[in-house]
Amino acid sequence: MFIDAIRCAIGETESAVCVGLDPHADLLPPNVSRTIKGVGNFLDRIIAETAEHACAYKPNSAFYEALGTDGAALLRRTIDRIHREGRPAILDAKRGDISSTAAAYAHSAFDVLNADAITVVPYMGEDAVLPFIETGGFAFLLALPSNPSAQPITAYGDPPLFERIAEIAMRLNEARSGHVGLVVGATQRDAVRRMDNISGALPWLVPGVGAQGGDAAEFFSNARRERIHLVNASRSILFAADPREAAERLKVQIREARGG
Amino acid sequence: MFIDAIRCAIGETESAVCVGLDPHADLLPPNVSRTIKGVGNFLDRIIAETAEHACAYKPNSAFYEALGTDGAALLRRTIDRIHREGRPAILDAKRGDISSTAAAYAHSAFDVLNADAITVVPYMGEDAVLPFIETGGFAFLLALPSNPSAQPITAYGDPPLFERIAEIAMRLNEARSGHVGLVVGATQRDAVRRMDNISGALPWLVPGVGAQGGDAAEFFSNARRERIHLVNASRSILFAADPREAAERLKVQIREARGG
Repeated sequence: MFIDAIRCAIGETESAVCVGLDPHADLLPPNVSRTIKGVGNFLDRIIAETAEHACAYKPNSAFYEALGTDGAALLRRTIDRIHREGRPAILDAKRGDISSTAAAYAHSAFDVLNADAITVVPYMGEDAVLPFIETGGFAFLLALPSNPSAQPITAYGDPPLFERIAEIAMRLNEARSGHVGLVVGATQRDAVRRMDNISGALPWLVPGVGAQGGDAAEFFSNARRERIHLVNASRSILFAADPREAAERLKVQIREARGG
Repeated sequence: MFIDAIRCAIGETESAVCVGLDPHADLLPPNVSRTIKGVGNFLDRIIAETAEHACAYKPNSAFYEALGTDGAALLRRTIDRIHREGRPAILDAKRGDISSTAAAYAHSAFDVLNADAITVVPYMGEDAVLPFIETGGFAFLLALPSNPSAQPITAYGDPPLFERIAEIAMRLNEARSGHVGLVVGATQRDAVRRMDNISGALPWLVPGVGAQGGDAAEFFSNARRERIHLVNASRSILFAADPREAAERLKVQIREARGG
């Protein structure tokens, strides 16, 4: 189960760093061949170099799909490689659809690709999430995206819509405890504080630290409750001159931001 | 361009029927082999038999992804087959993510898979849609899903959130006219009437007729404005004893419902 695997990996690495794997063809180093094999070898190297300081990996389905119709096979290979390092794989796919379609996406994520968790957009309500958790998978519900253009939607209404998403997540977690988490971007201070108060002990996946302008110290000054925080960094590690050192630096920053 | 292709296909077929291609492994006829080749041949036959009465096809990415890592290759084959009948292909993928990720999904949909249009979930705002239309593609924004569990979200706030989604779609269409449409489920009467009033001449993709309980006559009594309506039916055609006859019957039902 994802929740056990992530606890174990956090214990082993003493790290809250999740490395986002975005094999963006335009950003790969010039010496990496843009073939499925070349990109696969590049990702294998990143995983091997960073595993000591990363408790999880988050491959982003979009960049694999964009590589061609072989993208899914490469994604499966990446996830197998992540597992060989003893780390869980969170498939960043932002899937969300009505029940039988969601069940097909769940089968793809957990059986075809062998991921341990997935990101889900809950715009279609509980139907869009249930199939991912009913069969034992773990779903991170997108509650607070890190991009500014999402705010007219996520902050809509009073209380803001993201609070309703948190309620849905809490309710789903009552039904399937230990299978539900939230995506909470690091970039919106007041919303982070509010989410901290209303989301119980749900694990958070936290994008937006680093490249998107979020700051770990600022984030943890607003996210004060005890919970599993997975702080994701993608390009700032993947395309760093020394990925291992970049992962270690973020791990230390997070530890200092949490005051220990 | 999608909008020209769909106008042409509607003229040729005099039909508003869009056939949803959901190759759901559990529902395929018993004589169809569950291999990529077997499913591909089944879909080829459905497309050939229904093309006279269908102006478009909507392959659902989830069911292809669930078939295995070869699913994307089969999806590309299906789309090529749809094009050989002179029909546009709407990729039902409900993608939605921040800009560079959305750009990768757009590349996958329009270049790797060769689709003409895609369904998009706009929960992350305009950033999540722009890359799909900027390069000439067409995006149907999910505004009113057809499943009941979406209502606590889509009807949230005052005015309800779906009206805000329609505003975003209208604004995007001002920037890239002829590249934006809406997904408007047939199952919510009052919401359909409201959407009809606020969504200008944007084309609608309409799920929920047939298997999900919507009724064509009821729908068109609330959707009265002139616009392109693509009425999608998936299982009621795909798994019918006679798919050609099922497509023709729906085509006639729609024509009668529109009073012509």
